[in-house]
Amino acid sequence: MDSVTKSLASLSIAPAAYISHPDTTSPATWREALHVNTSTTFQLVKTLVYKPKTAKTVTPVPVVVIARDDTETNAGAIAKKLNLKEMRLASEDLLTEFFSLDKNSLSPLALNATTFPKVVTVVDSSIASSSSLFAVHALSSASTVFLSGKDIVAYLRHLETDSVKIQELDFANLAGSAAAPVAASKPAAKEKDDGKIEGAVQIAIGVKKEVDFPGWYTNVLIKADMLDYYSVSGCYILKPWSYSIWEEITQWFNAEIKELGVQNSYFPMFVSQKVLEREKDHIEGFSPEVAWVTRAGNSDLEEPIAIRPTSETAMYPYYAKWIKSHRDLPLKLNQWNSVVRWEFKNPQPFLRTREFLWQEGHTAFLTQAEADTEVRQILDLYRRVYEELLAVPVIAGVKSEKEKFAGGLYTTTVEGFIPTSGRGIQGATSHCLGQNFSRPEMFNIFVEDPNDPTGQGKTYVWQNSWGLSTRTIGVMVMVHGDNQGLVLPPRVASVQVVIVPCGITAKTTDESRAKINDACEELAKTLKKSGIRAKADLREGYTPGYKFNDWEQKGVPLRLEIGPNDIAKQQTLTVRRDTGVKNPVGLADIGPTVSALLDTIQSEMYSRAKATYDSSLKEVTRWDDVVPTLDNKCVVVMPWCEVEECEDDIKERSGRASEPQDERAPSAGAKSLAIPFDQVRWSPIVPGKTKCPACGKDAKRWTMFGRSY
Amino acid sequence: MDSVTKSLASLSIAPAAYISHPDTTSPATWREALHVNTSTTFQLVKTLVYKPKTAKTVTPVPVVVIARDDTETNAGAIAKKLNLKEMRLASEDLLTEFFSLDKNSLSPLALNATTFPKVVTVVDSSIASSSSLFAVHALSSASTVFLSGKDIVAYLRHLETDSVKIQELDFANLAGSAAAPVAASKPAAKEKDDGKIEGAVQIAIGVKKEVDFPGWYTNVLIKADMLDYYSVSGCYILKPWSYSIWEEITQWFNAEIKELGVQNSYFPMFVSQKVLEREKDHIEGFSPEVAWVTRAGNSDLEEPIAIRPTSETAMYPYYAKWIKSHRDLPLKLNQWNSVVRWEFKNPQPFLRTREFLWQEGHTAFLTQAEADTEVRQILDLYRRVYEELLAVPVIAGVKSEKEKFAGGLYTTTVEGFIPTSGRGIQGATSHCLGQNFSRPEMFNIFVEDPNDPTGQGKTYVWQNSWGLSTRTIGVMVMVHGDNQGLVLPPRVASVQVVIVPCGITAKTTDESRAKINDACEELAKTLKKSGIRAKADLREGYTPGYKFNDWEQKGVPLRLEIGPNDIAKQQTLTVRRDTGVKNPVGLADIGPTVSALLDTIQSEMYSRAKATYDSSLKEVTRWDDVVPTLDNKCVVVMPWCEVEECEDDIKERSGRASEPQDERAPSAGAKSLAIPFDQVRWSPIVPGKTKCPACGKDAKRWTMFGRSY
Repeated sequence: MDSVTKSLASLSIAPAAYISHPDTTSPATWREALHVNTSTTFQLVKTLVYKPKTAKTVTPVPVVVIARDDTETNAGAIAKKLNLKEMRLASEDLLTEFFSLDKNSLSPLALNATTFPKVVTVVDSSIASSSSLFAVHALSSASTVFLSGKDIVAYLRHLETDSVKIQELDFANLAGSAAAPVAASKPAAKEKDDGKIEGAVQIAIGVKKEVDFPGWYTNVLIKADMLDYYSVSGCYILKPWSYSIWEEITQWFNAEIKELGVQNSYFPMFVSQKVLEREKDHIEGFSPEVAWVTRAGNSDLEEPIAIRPTSETAMYPYYAKWIKSHRDLPLKLNQWNSVVRWEFKNPQPFLRTREFLWQEGHTAFLTQAEADTEVRQILDLYRRVYEELLAVPVIAGVKSEKEKFAGGLYTTTVEGFIPTSGRGIQGATSHCLGQNFSRPEMFNIFVEDPNDPTGQGKTYVWQNSWGLSTRTIGVMVMVHGDNQGLVLPPRVASVQVVIVPCGITAKTTDESRAKINDACEELAKTLKKSGIRAKADLREGYTPGYKFNDWEQKGVPLRLEIGPNDIAKQQTLTVRRDTGVKNPVGLADIGPTVSALLDTIQSEMYSRAKATYDSSLKEVTRWDDVVPTLDNKCVVVMPWCEVEECEDDIKERSGRASEPQDERAPSAGAKSLAIPFDQVRWSPIVPGKTKCPACGKDAKRWTMFGRSY
Repeated sequence: MDSVTKSLASLSIAPAAYISHPDTTSPATWREALHVNTSTTFQLVKTLVYKPKTAKTVTPVPVVVIARDDTETNAGAIAKKLNLKEMRLASEDLLTEFFSLDKNSLSPLALNATTFPKVVTVVDSSIASSSSLFAVHALSSASTVFLSGKDIVAYLRHLETDSVKIQELDFANLAGSAAAPVAASKPAAKEKDDGKIEGAVQIAIGVKKEVDFPGWYTNVLIKADMLDYYSVSGCYILKPWSYSIWEEITQWFNAEIKELGVQNSYFPMFVSQKVLEREKDHIEGFSPEVAWVTRAGNSDLEEPIAIRPTSETAMYPYYAKWIKSHRDLPLKLNQWNSVVRWEFKNPQPFLRTREFLWQEGHTAFLTQAEADTEVRQILDLYRRVYEELLAVPVIAGVKSEKEKFAGGLYTTTVEGFIPTSGRGIQGATSHCLGQNFSRPEMFNIFVEDPNDPTGQGKTYVWQNSWGLSTRTIGVMVMVHGDNQGLVLPPRVASVQVVIVPCGITAKTTDESRAKINDACEELAKTLKKSGIRAKADLREGYTPGYKFNDWEQKGVPLRLEIGPNDIAKQQTLTVRRDTGVKNPVGLADIGPTVSALLDTIQSEMYSRAKATYDSSLKEVTRWDDVVPTLDNKCVVVMPWCEVEECEDDIKERSGRASEPQDERAPSAGAKSLAIPFDQVRWSPIVPGKTKCPACGKDAKRWTMFGRSY
């Protein structure tokens, strides 16, 4: 019995598992080591040690922060809560001195009777109150113990003395609570709802959406079999259940753009440094995130080669070559590919990943009018992907100067909204690049102007670029999912209808059982003939209840149950995933009946989400209402001056009160999301009279401001 | 007037162009600089300087080799031809000493009255006799002159003295001519057919397939608008005209594998070093070609991350995690992606590129029988892609032990054949991996054996992997293309029928012209209704002749011409691309007529190619016939012992006579291509009696041997 097992046993703490694995040097390698060795659902715990800034005469007391690996731990905010001036991550030396451990082996278990009194221990209260499983190292980066959050805190509490207690901080709400006074912290004593759903069967999601949204999100993705973590940090495996949604989107979008005369092509993933860096503004937007290949086999490359973060600069030298006459216009190419943006922010499946799948369209026109028209045509297709395929409402508009695509002329966007977090999310963007990439000092893409009577005039082409990514899938999950798991809109569900045989008991005769199964198969066949993606779940050895849960978790829009009574009555029980509503329907004419029901589900899912979005758009005309509206998880719509300094100011003022800035975190201050095209839904702006509530200057257009992803 | 212009002018040589550009440091950067600055079709010339090995007392005379950039220049073979012992690339010092130029600036123009007599100058005879344009540096890596091959040689000839002449060597045939005696070289005096097609209009291919096959191939790809060169060497742009073929293949194959229960998914392009290198045999096959990302933005990564060359080791740790019970089997995943193999051999569009598109299927089964069955099912789909979609005959068989997939159990293949070069080409492979990746010391993928009565037994899963790439497109081009350009099989042509208005002259009235154009448009619509991909070419300002050439070059299977007489007779003239056969057909019932004609074209293209392949398969039973058969551009089929040493020996003996080995070159010696499944087409092998003609041991099966790509 080793020391960890022994001390846990002395507290009657029984770890869910205790495993050995190779040394781990990062969260990613740790996660991989665990995923290979166990199928347990868990979260990693990170243990960070900070050294506070103190007067030179005072010995600093290290601060040990214990949090979920994916929780934002803002050193500034924590310091403020602890009434400390500033904290910095401690050196390796200090770790060795205090704990005799390297940073990879550190864990809450590194605290013991000797070390605990010498440090300040801060625990995320969402761990403290959680029954979910967490992975912590057992005094070595090569071993892991799985403990519930409550167990972790129980372990720490037994180290407490009269004067030294652990401090619980609600890290999630460090961001949201604008009204919270900045004062010395005290232990958060109140018992919180830990998001664990009571009585949930083994396969259910296990975390409540409204309580622990990030935990819920990753749980849904894993349990619905959409995604798995991968051994390279920030990259994820798209399993068939999510990839099939992407296939539906690509098929629909492909057909639509081909109608517009767009052709598909494929450009290499590699971009030479020189070409990548040709457009200054553009590359500034991307260069911190570019992944570089420097070696092939055992040979160093002569010059490093970039993996495309997007393909403007890779493609446009060839546009210059191919476009020789106005007869070569318009040129409309698209490609379906993956791009790499090596973000150092917290990755989030689908929403922010280091490699992601998308399409990028790149078009060139003779005139601005044609380019403008296409920008909006494509944006409308993006709107339809969200609204018609994914049943997710979006608002179309134009981005502010600050938020537009680096190097472009203007950017249009469809903006989505995640009610649970109250944050906006950019759905997809369609950019007019103007002549910025075609001008002579850039890529020099021109034709002889066919309208110039002298025949001497050159016209530089007008260009657009536009992209839609697998982010779509993440937005859909966040908007529609519930505490049973995923809820799929029928149009993108790879299985739209699952048929489950019911009423089979131990007493059921083989003949009767076969009859029920046959009826299910027959029904699936009938539905398929009507073009419905139906599946009969005839798995042996699983109860109907298990199957119900399984398919609910995976979000199948409609379940049909068939038992002996149903066969007798020539009917089936329909159960909607989105509402839970059950309804028996006759088997005669079942194809059209089910088709109609799927259409209803699709349109009602959209309507409900739309109503929520609409009710979260708050018309604001006084500054005092801005932050409370944001804190109330709503989007501010206000008449805005459209001045960039004002936008910076709004971001700062809406963030400052509630949370210090952290560049690794999603924006805490509000930024402009879009200037909606549909301005008439708000009261008219009177030129020269309606003022911007933020700066008092003349307002131009109603603009959406919000916290965002 | 600079010195280059002056000396060319003195010889009455007028360069097609003379341009300045940024310094170039490699063929890739040079090519890019040129492609950005010009739309001229050209080939780069490389100028290599070698130092021969001599006795210590003798001063070595440098050898200057002038060749097409993509021509294989085998130092050993050249040395032999020149009766030299050995040659090595000269140092930079020697270049500076002789030419006062760095290696990037070197070109035939570096030779002048001073330097020429001091060196041996060797020119590829295919340049010497060519009227095509070549790019050569004008004494600087930042300037380029475009000269015909004849101009280059004219320049060099004027430097000749009575004792020092240039030497022409036929580099292409250095490989093929087994019978050529190895002797001191002499200038190749005979005038060769240069492959230039006389009287070809500006847009035609310009190079004869049978004379300069590599030149013809790249010309067809460029002129048919399938592909463009790219600024990163070994990578190419797939333009819509070729990408659409890939789309046809993916759609067909996707539908077929989904019928087999395969699901699509997406795994990240990145693989950690540890995971990549887990299977030793496997990684040995790939490691020299792996591209490594070592930097993101300005930060070095903690450990380098590989870009997948294939995904076995990336995927299988997750298979181990996901497969927990025999109920999870079979697991059948596929992905459409790109992979990177940073080959240092000569790249060739579609056939050998550093990044290429493919699908990779990875499946796991409980039993070997199931795995075996799937290997063959998939192989048959690959056969059908070639034979039914691309009209390219292939022969299905199994690879020898030496040629099988690294780390697998056995590899099946569909082998194609390129008659013009007489080389075999691997079409696509379907591997059974056996339990090699699933065994405990590898990825440890097992289930409890459901058939083990004790319930204790473990079964390691049986795995397959299989892939089909864009190489398909290159094979199709090589097999079907002709001296007019591309010839597309109807099933994969994005435009199957082009309708060209004819008989419009200066005298034609506007009304009459409109009537003809309307008839063309009407016909296109009618054909589209029959599911035919038809297009009316109503471009103004182009003659019918130009349009004919344009679409012939692009390989459109069928042309329909409509003129005033055709309208009067309610008919259209059909012109087949594959045979040139013209035939008037009535417009009544035109949809079915054209559909039937397209079917005929498709099947006749296949039949003709099949007949050629069949007639190139030569049954050989005596060793003496092997090399002559290969030299006659045929495939040897012989009863083979299947011993690996014998295969090595065959390769050496069949290569040695005609050409020394060069690891950068395609195999010059013959290797085994496949052991065909269909053995009965050759006379029965009598066990213990039929002998292997190579080694005299007992023969096992008829095996195809050939030179190959």
